[in-house]
Amino acid sequence: MGKNDHYDDLVVKSSEESRVFERLRAHVDINLEGHLIDSFILPKVLGLIYDHDANLKFLNFHVGETEKDYSRCTIRIFAENEEKLSEIISELQVFGAVVKGVEEDVVLESASADGVLPDSFYSTTHHETFIRLGGHWLLVENPEMDKAIVIRDGRAFTVPISKVKKGDMVVTGSKGIKVVPPERPRRREIFEFMASTASSEKPSTTYARLIAKEILEIKRGNGKIVIVAGPAIIHSGARDTLAELIRKGYVDALLSGNALAVHDVEYSLFGTSLGMNLKSVETHEGGHRHHMAAINEVRKAGSLREAVEKSVLKSGVFYECIKSDVPYVLAGSIRDDGPIPDVITDVVEAQEAMRKHLRNAALVLMMATALHSIAVGNLLPSKVRTIVIDISQATVTKLLDRGTMHAVGIVTDIGTFLPTLLSFIKRLEKEEKM
Amino acid sequence: MGKNDHYDDLVVKSSEESRVFERLRAHVDINLEGHLIDSFILPKVLGLIYDHDANLKFLNFHVGETEKDYSRCTIRIFAENEEKLSEIISELQVFGAVVKGVEEDVVLESASADGVLPDSFYSTTHHETFIRLGGHWLLVENPEMDKAIVIRDGRAFTVPISKVKKGDMVVTGSKGIKVVPPERPRRREIFEFMASTASSEKPSTTYARLIAKEILEIKRGNGKIVIVAGPAIIHSGARDTLAELIRKGYVDALLSGNALAVHDVEYSLFGTSLGMNLKSVETHEGGHRHHMAAINEVRKAGSLREAVEKSVLKSGVFYECIKSDVPYVLAGSIRDDGPIPDVITDVVEAQEAMRKHLRNAALVLMMATALHSIAVGNLLPSKVRTIVIDISQATVTKLLDRGTMHAVGIVTDIGTFLPTLLSFIKRLEKEEKM
Amino acid sequence: MGKNDHYDDLVVKSSEESRVFERLRAHVDINLEGHLIDSFILPKVLGLIYDHDANLKFLNFHVGETEKDYSRCTIRIFAENEEKLSEIISELQVFGAVVKGVEEDVVLESASADGVLPDSFYSTTHHETFIRLGGHWLLVENPEMDKAIVIRDGRAFTVPISKVKKGDMVVTGSKGIKVVPPERPRRREIFEFMASTASSEKPSTTYARLIAKEILEIKRGNGKIVIVAGPAIIHSGARDTLAELIRKGYVDALLSGNALAVHDVEYSLFGTSLGMNLKSVETHEGGHRHHMAAINEVRKAGSLREAVEKSVLKSGVFYECIKSDVPYVLAGSIRDDGPIPDVITDVVEAQEAMRKHLRNAALVLMMATALHSIAVGNLLPSKVRTIVIDISQATVTKLLDRGTMHAVGIVTDIGTFLPTLLSFIKRLEKEEKM
Amino acid sequence: MGKNDHYDDLVVKSSEESRVFERLRAHVDINLEGHLIDSFILPKVLGLIYDHDANLKFLNFHVGETEKDYSRCTIRIFAENEEKLSEIISELQVFGAVVKGVEEDVVLESASADGVLPDSFYSTTHHETFIRLGGHWLLVENPEMDKAIVIRDGRAFTVPISKVKKGDMVVTGSKGIKVVPPERPRRREIFEFMASTASSEKPSTTYARLIAKEILEIKRGNGKIVIVAGPAIIHSGARDTLAELIRKGYVDALLSGNALAVHDVEYSLFGTSLGMNLKSVETHEGGHRHHMAAINEVRKAGSLREAVEKSVLKSGVFYECIKSDVPYVLAGSIRDDGPIPDVITDVVEAQEAMRKHLRNAALVLMMATALHSIAVGNLLPSKVRTIVIDISQATVTKLLDRGTMHAVGIVTDIGTFLPTLLSFIKRLEKEEKM
Repeated sequence: MGKNDHYDDLVVKSSEESRVFERLRAHVDINLEGHLIDSFILPKVLGLIYDHDANLKFLNFHVGETEKDYSRCTIRIFAENEEKLSEIISELQVFGAVVKGVEEDVVLESASADGVLPDSFYSTTHHETFIRLGGHWLLVENPEMDKAIVIRDGRAFTVPISKVKKGDMVVTGSKGIKVVPPERPRRREIFEFMASTASSEKPSTTYARLIAKEILEIKRGNGKIVIVAGPAIIHSGARDTLAELIRKGYVDALLSGNALAVHDVEYSLFGTSLGMNLKSVETHEGGHRHHMAAINEVRKAGSLREAVEKSVLKSGVFYECIKSDVPYVLAGSIRDDGPIPDVITDVVEAQEAMRKHLRNAALVLMMATALHSIAVGNLLPSKVRTIVIDISQATVTKLLDRGTMHAVGIVTDIGTFLPTLLSFIKRLEKEEKM
Repeated sequence: MGKNDHYDDLVVKSSEESRVFERLRAHVDINLEGHLIDSFILPKVLGLIYDHDANLKFLNFHVGETEKDYSRCTIRIFAENEEKLSEIISELQVFGAVVKGVEEDVVLESASADGVLPDSFYSTTHHETFIRLGGHWLLVENPEMDKAIVIRDGRAFTVPISKVKKGDMVVTGSKGIKVVPPERPRRREIFEFMASTASSEKPSTTYARLIAKEILEIKRGNGKIVIVAGPAIIHSGARDTLAELIRKGYVDALLSGNALAVHDVEYSLFGTSLGMNLKSVETHEGGHRHHMAAINEVRKAGSLREAVEKSVLKSGVFYECIKSDVPYVLAGSIRDDGPIPDVITDVVEAQEAMRKHLRNAALVLMMATALHSIAVGNLLPSKVRTIVIDISQATVTKLLDRGTMHAVGIVTDIGTFLPTLLSFIKRLEKEEKM
Repeated sequence: MGKNDHYDDLVVKSSEESRVFERLRAHVDINLEGHLIDSFILPKVLGLIYDHDANLKFLNFHVGETEKDYSRCTIRIFAENEEKLSEIISELQVFGAVVKGVEEDVVLESASADGVLPDSFYSTTHHETFIRLGGHWLLVENPEMDKAIVIRDGRAFTVPISKVKKGDMVVTGSKGIKVVPPERPRRREIFEFMASTASSEKPSTTYARLIAKEILEIKRGNGKIVIVAGPAIIHSGARDTLAELIRKGYVDALLSGNALAVHDVEYSLFGTSLGMNLKSVETHEGGHRHHMAAINEVRKAGSLREAVEKSVLKSGVFYECIKSDVPYVLAGSIRDDGPIPDVITDVVEAQEAMRKHLRNAALVLMMATALHSIAVGNLLPSKVRTIVIDISQATVTKLLDRGTMHAVGIVTDIGTFLPTLLSFIKRLEKEEKM
Repeated sequence: MGKNDHYDDLVVKSSEESRVFERLRAHVDINLEGHLIDSFILPKVLGLIYDHDANLKFLNFHVGETEKDYSRCTIRIFAENEEKLSEIISELQVFGAVVKGVEEDVVLESASADGVLPDSFYSTTHHETFIRLGGHWLLVENPEMDKAIVIRDGRAFTVPISKVKKGDMVVTGSKGIKVVPPERPRRREIFEFMASTASSEKPSTTYARLIAKEILEIKRGNGKIVIVAGPAIIHSGARDTLAELIRKGYVDALLSGNALAVHDVEYSLFGTSLGMNLKSVETHEGGHRHHMAAINEVRKAGSLREAVEKSVLKSGVFYECIKSDVPYVLAGSIRDDGPIPDVITDVVEAQEAMRKHLRNAALVLMMATALHSIAVGNLLPSKVRTIVIDISQATVTKLLDRGTMHAVGIVTDIGTFLPTLLSFIKRLEKEEKM
């Protein structure tokens, strides 16, 4: 490095500043490394410090030369007292701040009872995280938000509070923890849109084309695609499209609830969804019975798989899943009718089941469901590419608002968007063959 | 009529009833005729009477035998006093109620100044309306909501208050006026959906298919199709589709505002919409300049037509309108940039211009614009078939909530819906040729 | 009754009609009784018959004289064949149609396995329902939508499919079943608004005043008020208001989920909600930890009640519930963090728990939660007065769209609406004391 | 400057970098000054450069020491060619970038016709802007977005394209122009919320309290408060509150349209709004006539002022405006009924009228109107504090999305929010008196 890549004692104190620093008697130096400038990390770090009535000066600042290089800086933080300082440091960890020179190990504490954490437990982000144990930095496996970090057999895992066992060694405090927020995605990628707000005033067909391309690239690289889907897929008329995507091998797991399955079966058995004929949009007063009859048929067969095996269920989303051995998880909800036997009615167990299928996902498509999208969002590391499709801007905004840089929100009608996406996929498939 | 098709003095008075009728000293008999039962008119009439603390009895009731037949009944209304009675009668006229035996002419009064109506002016509905003049029932031409009825040369017209001239003979009060609400549409028609609430949980592709069929049928019968469109048509990526519909001859008039035209021109000149490239969804900070440059280009050319003639504008929605001689009206709005010279900046004059193109419309498609859709809705007779397409359920609901039975609301993304509609139209065209 | 209160053979056949009836060879007579005209039942009945390509004539028609009287009519329905006829009759039952002269008992069939219904099971509405058993009409207890009717010990109950036991005697087909839809509410009641569409363009403070009056009247009559609430109650700043309503004795049961309780506890312990300080609206990056710490505190204490007893939880919604012995049900959801031990994680069990508290409810207020409102809506008889308050018009519309005439929807911000409601309640309390 | 506040030649070239810079043959150095880091300017600058396939290195970087200090840096931008470079520079100006050492004057060009700009016209931002003329930096008066800069009498003004006159000297290109984006607001201010997304999940009463405080502080300093209001103010029941705010002197100008005035007058004359009684929420079929009658009354009187003078109008929002000499502008809209004579039906003239009242505004409150809020937003400099209140999150988000750091969005019901705001203002008034 050249002579200028850091500069100690940058600041010439002004008189006002002197006054300020008189009040702020505690200080500490922290190191920050990453895409500090173009990933909006530095502005957030500065805002956070100021918001605590604290102050700072830059001890050095090395700006990454090219798009790919990290920036590095050391900041001296001044706060009113040590307590305030450690609060600030704890909050700064989300951005990858590490207290300088203090290469201390994490502090572990054992859980005093099943499902109960030590008071000062460290609550995780969904970013890549390392803990320092025995002088070495250890990667925390399966990063997930709002979890505890537990050490088992020398490995570090995130564990939901309900699955913590008495005696588990739990990471506490803020020492020895390093968080690595994801990079800002590079130019020309669909995921670069993220910066812009989700709104209905975007060219939906262009989005469909770009996502089609993304899906094909992921599949070419054997990446895993998980679909989270709400029942509006069926009502809105996109059922056959989703079934075809599954049949074609673009879906590696399907996460949903009772309603999607029941509507799918109702449509297979009666051509209706909640009694509305999806081909003629006629509704009959008594048609609502179809909904309950569909549930009864699956219960009679024993499960969706048995309904397929007994030739009760001969088409649709779940038929294709079963025929192609695509796993699905149906989580119970307080508003379920029935439910069908495939539904995991205990929501904690349903979360566990969903977790398994999200491991190593390359892309998650969340379609027309606020409930399951938020649920799955809670289980995802920040680096997983996520596409949220919903007709409600409020829903899409809420889902995007999780601090990830790899999420795209599209405000559109799944009923026309999904068929458009499929037609782009088919066009690309043809082009590839040629 | 047979012996049973009416029954005077139907009611045997109960003691409670006696008490009620003691209070209600004024009464009048009215005749009602129409699809009283299956068009929800009777329930509304009864509700209205009860809501006025009044009461009623049926003097006779002839139920239409088949789906197509009218029902007829005579109702005796009891109210507290004559004033209350005439208030009720005035409100009942919306449903076609006519005071029995009182075959009186309308009462005309002359306007005392330009743009000012007599105090007791009759405010129109958007239903078919007749007035009794010189003992004859005269059809009111160009029915429109919230207007005055003016007699000129023995003909009756609706006139907006701002166009009323001093001395105009204006219909007042409630005598001699008959309103005919539209019939409930018949089975299997797309417009029968109306009864069901607009929501995003409907099969959009089925709607697209049914509307495609409707459009082709109307065109086969040389019916007039008017499109009301908002700028989201361009942002959402449906521009080329709308241009193609115009080129193919499916559009007889286009009603919109400055923004649609400016975005259309910007896309033709620069490939962007408000600076966003619609093919790559990239946005540039400076791209917003394209928007202003598009306006400047049209102003420089003199108008959209001149821009086409000077080969400045070579594609798009307005290019196709001009090439195919499809008339358009661009109404000014307080939020306009520019505007371009084609815009009618005076809103009262813009309303007049829109009115002309709505005469004899067979179908009005309102797409992705609350402002212009409400404006056009105000100018339309209730019998004109109307399809409202918007991504906001609140907007669609508001537009449907005008008492017409010939409106369909679709909550969808115009960016994917319009291309889907076009593909159905093309498929039907092919089938027709075969 | 007088000579004219019915009229057989009303119809003089036209030639077209003859042709129509040639095709429709099957016919049956049904009786209808109720507020046929002003409750919109008759129009729906006619529409339903026509929608089946069937036809009808009125054999007699007795119009209720006053607002309170029932109307009665007998309709002869003509359909293509017997199968079509019974389909129509089955659908007409929702409106209280009973096949004339055919006073047959219900057909019972036993369930072949736990959780499985006979194929031709009757699926319930949420209206008052009677079945004819041994020649007598028996009221079905706890009416609820989409359930089976099971006979146990000579009584009839609705039973959810998952709770049906092998051997249960289940009502099937459509014979011997009578449904009584609720009356249209009378004038001047808050529930009369129902007819008008929910929208944000309504005077919220007037609604608050009317609901305050309703609540006081119900409480004066010892009626039961159940509140269904979402976590936005806390975020939006209405927490203290809800807590005060509970303390004042206006709430008899609270139905919600994990999030409401966790946000409530977080606010009690830290003054924040998901890390946002609700008094200063400042947010801290690390504040999200408060959310998890709140969960941990409750888990450590053992339950909300124990947290109150151990003086960990000293204020808020659940503190007041526990202090005033107001029961609550917290239903699990797939998106729960934690959850706290009070949550019933099995959704079928949670539904059962909610059911208990809804028995005999006089008023249900659903506030700021789509998930729990739909869930509770599924468990409610149609006669229970329901008020739905949400900031999303789509949510309110969806909840109202269940065929009840006793639901009011208000599109407003719970954060300002609930305090306004409370201030009206306090004003009325004062007036009562004076 | 000290020895460390800049560092030339920071970068040690890697081999990959060499390859990159081979392609990028053109380069230029720019200076940036401002709150580069904590106002998100630098990340945007870097993103913009990368998005153009260009690259950069930092020649020096002086980080502002305290919250209040500016940062300064010099960046060398590398691009494919000179054309690309100037495109980048033009886009960077929005962030205050000035080409280093090139202290050139702006290039002026005269307009060739009325309402037509030179092809390379500079399109303004709404930020504070300076142009260099005759070697001196000149402040552009009345900054407004998407306008031209015209030099008249040695002063620089923004001029809307439609008001440009033939021969006007217009600023073109990108030389000699400096833009100063607003600072990030400081801690503890209500306007600091801006960073967080608008959503309904915020504590509305806290917002009301903070805005009340802000309003009182502005009034204490004789600041100007402008209200932009939609007709929902009346429907939603907040009319009397707004009238009281005007009477109390908190409103310096009211910008709206025909509908607000007509509903206000209708309520004064008849107690209804579009026929709905706002005290009892009853609606009458004929009540819609009140709407037209209100229009007729104002037309008859001649104007709102004359209606007040003639004692036709005796209460309400406009009554208070007239009594307190608060100016108002009513802009015409294509959906207007009437309109009343006070409405400026030409939208370009209406914009001019609104502009006048926005000069030197300290605070603009936009309430329950998308149309007028967007219109006014287009006319406002970025430094004016703006509060947007609407029940639709999509509307609020759209209005906030204009690159200002001094706007707050609140998703709430104006019908309950405005009364809450007024009650906080009254409480603060009392506290001040004590």
